[in-house]
Amino acid sequence: MDIEQANEQLERLRLEASGEAGKGKVASYIPELAKEDPHQLGISVCLSDGTILSAGEAQKPFTLQSISKIFSLIVALCQNGQQHVFERVGKEPTGDPFNSIIKLETIKPHKPLNPMINAGAIAVAGMIQGKSVQERLDCILDLLRRITGNPHIGVNEAVYCSEKKTAARNRALAWFLKDSGVLAGDVEETLDLYFRHCAIEVTAEEVARLGMALAADGVDVRTGDRVFPAEVARICKTFMVTCGMYNASGEFAIDVGIPAKSGVAGGIMATVPQRMGIGVFGPALDEKGNSVAGVKLLALLAKDWELGIF
Amino acid sequence: MDIEQANEQLERLRLEASGEAGKGKVASYIPELAKEDPHQLGISVCLSDGTILSAGEAQKPFTLQSISKIFSLIVALCQNGQQHVFERVGKEPTGDPFNSIIKLETIKPHKPLNPMINAGAIAVAGMIQGKSVQERLDCILDLLRRITGNPHIGVNEAVYCSEKKTAARNRALAWFLKDSGVLAGDVEETLDLYFRHCAIEVTAEEVARLGMALAADGVDVRTGDRVFPAEVARICKTFMVTCGMYNASGEFAIDVGIPAKSGVAGGIMATVPQRMGIGVFGPALDEKGNSVAGVKLLALLAKDWELGIF
Amino acid sequence: MDIEQANEQLERLRLEASGEAGKGKVASYIPELAKEDPHQLGISVCLSDGTILSAGEAQKPFTLQSISKIFSLIVALCQNGQQHVFERVGKEPTGDPFNSIIKLETIKPHKPLNPMINAGAIAVAGMIQGKSVQERLDCILDLLRRITGNPHIGVNEAVYCSEKKTAARNRALAWFLKDSGVLAGDVEETLDLYFRHCAIEVTAEEVARLGMALAADGVDVRTGDRVFPAEVARICKTFMVTCGMYNASGEFAIDVGIPAKSGVAGGIMATVPQRMGIGVFGPALDEKGNSVAGVKLLALLAKDWELGIF
Amino acid sequence: MDIEQANEQLERLRLEASGEAGKGKVASYIPELAKEDPHQLGISVCLSDGTILSAGEAQKPFTLQSISKIFSLIVALCQNGQQHVFERVGKEPTGDPFNSIIKLETIKPHKPLNPMINAGAIAVAGMIQGKSVQERLDCILDLLRRITGNPHIGVNEAVYCSEKKTAARNRALAWFLKDSGVLAGDVEETLDLYFRHCAIEVTAEEVARLGMALAADGVDVRTGDRVFPAEVARICKTFMVTCGMYNASGEFAIDVGIPAKSGVAGGIMATVPQRMGIGVFGPALDEKGNSVAGVKLLALLAKDWELGIF
Repeated sequence: MDIEQANEQLERLRLEASGEAGKGKVASYIPELAKEDPHQLGISVCLSDGTILSAGEAQKPFTLQSISKIFSLIVALCQNGQQHVFERVGKEPTGDPFNSIIKLETIKPHKPLNPMINAGAIAVAGMIQGKSVQERLDCILDLLRRITGNPHIGVNEAVYCSEKKTAARNRALAWFLKDSGVLAGDVEETLDLYFRHCAIEVTAEEVARLGMALAADGVDVRTGDRVFPAEVARICKTFMVTCGMYNASGEFAIDVGIPAKSGVAGGIMATVPQRMGIGVFGPALDEKGNSVAGVKLLALLAKDWELGIF
Repeated sequence: MDIEQANEQLERLRLEASGEAGKGKVASYIPELAKEDPHQLGISVCLSDGTILSAGEAQKPFTLQSISKIFSLIVALCQNGQQHVFERVGKEPTGDPFNSIIKLETIKPHKPLNPMINAGAIAVAGMIQGKSVQERLDCILDLLRRITGNPHIGVNEAVYCSEKKTAARNRALAWFLKDSGVLAGDVEETLDLYFRHCAIEVTAEEVARLGMALAADGVDVRTGDRVFPAEVARICKTFMVTCGMYNASGEFAIDVGIPAKSGVAGGIMATVPQRMGIGVFGPALDEKGNSVAGVKLLALLAKDWELGIF
Repeated sequence: MDIEQANEQLERLRLEASGEAGKGKVASYIPELAKEDPHQLGISVCLSDGTILSAGEAQKPFTLQSISKIFSLIVALCQNGQQHVFERVGKEPTGDPFNSIIKLETIKPHKPLNPMINAGAIAVAGMIQGKSVQERLDCILDLLRRITGNPHIGVNEAVYCSEKKTAARNRALAWFLKDSGVLAGDVEETLDLYFRHCAIEVTAEEVARLGMALAADGVDVRTGDRVFPAEVARICKTFMVTCGMYNASGEFAIDVGIPAKSGVAGGIMATVPQRMGIGVFGPALDEKGNSVAGVKLLALLAKDWELGIF
Repeated sequence: MDIEQANEQLERLRLEASGEAGKGKVASYIPELAKEDPHQLGISVCLSDGTILSAGEAQKPFTLQSISKIFSLIVALCQNGQQHVFERVGKEPTGDPFNSIIKLETIKPHKPLNPMINAGAIAVAGMIQGKSVQERLDCILDLLRRITGNPHIGVNEAVYCSEKKTAARNRALAWFLKDSGVLAGDVEETLDLYFRHCAIEVTAEEVARLGMALAADGVDVRTGDRVFPAEVARICKTFMVTCGMYNASGEFAIDVGIPAKSGVAGGIMATVPQRMGIGVFGPALDEKGNSVAGVKLLALLAKDWELGIF
């Protein structure tokens, strides 16, 4: 692949996709996110040899939001093992919005259907071990810092505070989980950890590196180090296909066909097995919570570069 | 009505009904309630001239639990008016268990269907005004003390603490209401008020007096004083018919036919318009949360004394 | 009560209420009903001595629609007894729209929550005995003819055909009931009976007479004959309070307070125990399916004449 | 791959998996299926050069049941195009049982979430064009006969009749779809087509050939002929991952990781892109409707032969 040519292609597709931004809106329920310019669009691709391709706002920091659910799951699986984790959270897509509470009541036993919906991710946060919220958060931060090579990755305090203040629905989910016995330990502490890991700040380029580590089955391609087991990578990629794009995951799988996880700050992390990790940032969201221009850009890229896994 | 004869009748019916207790179980989700002897059964009837008839454990203190929802509603209506209250809580029965959260998400606008389910009663608690939780609680206590003539009515601290500790589901409901904009003010304070008014301790005799005040359209028959408006009494009696016995209200209306409100401590307050108030205490509950022997006793009494309103 | 004066009062209230009609719409899902003039409003009151008061379109024929559910229930109860009937249909209000199918799946056992929603009424139709649909229908017609004294009461064929053609949702409900074992016998025959009894044509005056028979606990006040047991009348009146006005029953109970059953052709049958039956016809419906002007008129009348039972 | 060795491996894994059969039950809701011996287990693998490997009951005829939903979808997509089809049926997994009706009412617009649940497949059947049910069925049969090279593939009449007689729930779904406008045309005819294509009889070997055609992106590897477009194959494989194994699809994707579609007669068709098609037959089902021994056998095979796509 000719790097210069590839960068040009990326920029061309980015321009084509950026027109979609007008169809979406920045997330408004977290006031701090509502301040973003909806017309931004950046993409970064990390190849299997660590080469980075970029176009647009690839260096603009944004918060991981739901993308962080993949990394809290990795930590929880490494710390507790599959059996422990999947006794408390399921493996099934839901067909419901990411913040829905209905199935927590209707499905017996009362456990969240998967770790990508908010209820499931809160349950996962509850399984991350450590003596304090900070120590538990550090498990996630360490993983992200190691893969990206950026020791300064941390929490955006303004977004974290904004999120914490407006998190009534997530509190409802957490207390329901507590009532169901899914959540052990202190509810407020687990929520605090959840809000913090959602507010971890990264760039599209860093997200591309994270996606590449998943594509490489848990190996950091910069160093060749294994950072998490291949089995855990496989589980995450599967969840990215079945539940990664909220209740538009099925559509994205058909229309784009790459394992991906989105966040309401406008980020998307995509993973093309063995070949590449992709980070996208486009804060205008569709009604299901996915970056409109980001989804379009991945669709164009998947078609041009034949990235679909199906 | 010959008082002595009536007391004998009450005792006879009480004995007949008490056999039902074996079919139920004391509430277990509030540990303090689980300690009650399930075989207790007491009844008290307050006639329109203030005469009290009693049989069995009519002087045994128990906590109001959901019966208190009627009195928090009276206070909220008196303080805020119907319009304000019913913009935040509906008037419809639900067909769902009292602690269900599903309809909070499925029904638009997201307001609780009625003030007798937990979500609705928490919303009502949020409307009770005062500078502190204690001041807000006092509004309810003052009303109860005035009608019963017992200035010592207060909160059972052990039950309150037990309830507060195990109230994860109610917290989930409250935070959902907060998210929906139904609940203004501090969530924890409103929950605290809710737990406290549920833990107010009374006897069956006192409950009979409370029921008589409703039967007399808001007049305290001991003193002849009006304690709340007739319109408010009418609203409460209607809710007692359509939603007073959890999701067995329809069945109770057909099988017994008296406006009534039950609580999970085993109490039932029934109101025969103009004629009498009835307090029952029988802590063994059926699966919907109503006193099994209490329901049976009211059914027998309604038939013998022709108390049904339909 | 001075008859002339009462008629004048009725006319005055009718005029006041008729302004509400503009806020509603005639039922459109049954094409034949969509042809009605939405501004019509008629009322008839049948007193306990058989005297009839009327104002407006009291002689205009309209179809019973859901009002007929009361009479199919009467027939089913008389033919099968309470135990048989209530093993197949519940006694609880639902909080859901009248044609909802959700609770048939979510509630175990899978039986309709009450006989006033469509699913419940179809289950009731399935219990009406006879060698043919016509014979089963005649059981209902005979009852209506006897009480009204009109031997010509019958089915409006145009409405019946219109209803049968557009009844996909009701077919879905019926087949779900078949699957759940609630509906024995031939599904299409039971649906046919259901569509036919919904399309029975009456006038507001006749509905008033039907309501009076319920008010008189099953006695036809014209002849003094008992036409159905008092126990059955009591059950019907209770259902009219808890579930008679679709998922606005709770609101109607509070705002008006009279047992009543509405139909989507714009009719309402109300019953003031011992005192009177009321028939209303006003085809413009609110979004829950109740006559807007009819509800208003009953609210005005209940207030003026103090008809509320609570 | 050494064929003889591979056959031996298959037989060894088959024996290991067959012990699982005792944990399941044959489908009982279709009486004809209930007659099967639950201990059968057969597997056939079709390689990309057309070579067939087999073990156990690979020649035993069984009915496709839900596996046929893939082929009715292929026909519907070829006849109508993606836009037409996906306006009437969605692309999202549901988290609900295959015969659930709830989301048809709760999700707006009222269209089935995907073509793999019963409601979605009935909607798809409604889109298959032809002058008669037979002609519409022939579109599916022709496709199956062409790929398998077996011109005698047809409907098992006993199963079809059994299915038709006991299909109340599917009728409920179909009539709900009719009511929602999703289903055009005659409901009974579309149901008839649906029951017939579910009752098409095949062997595990034939299913393996069908799976290989999907693996080869729509090319029949026996003849080299393209039998359906690559784009359609891609869509089907994606649905097989997200919704192919009922509401255990997410779990299967994680635990096995091969696109697969199961049927309640105990069949599973799996597709390893480019490499192979797999047909399994094991009639003992788990509670979600998947062959217990079949799932186990695929899990063992996927691990041994490294077939997972994630």
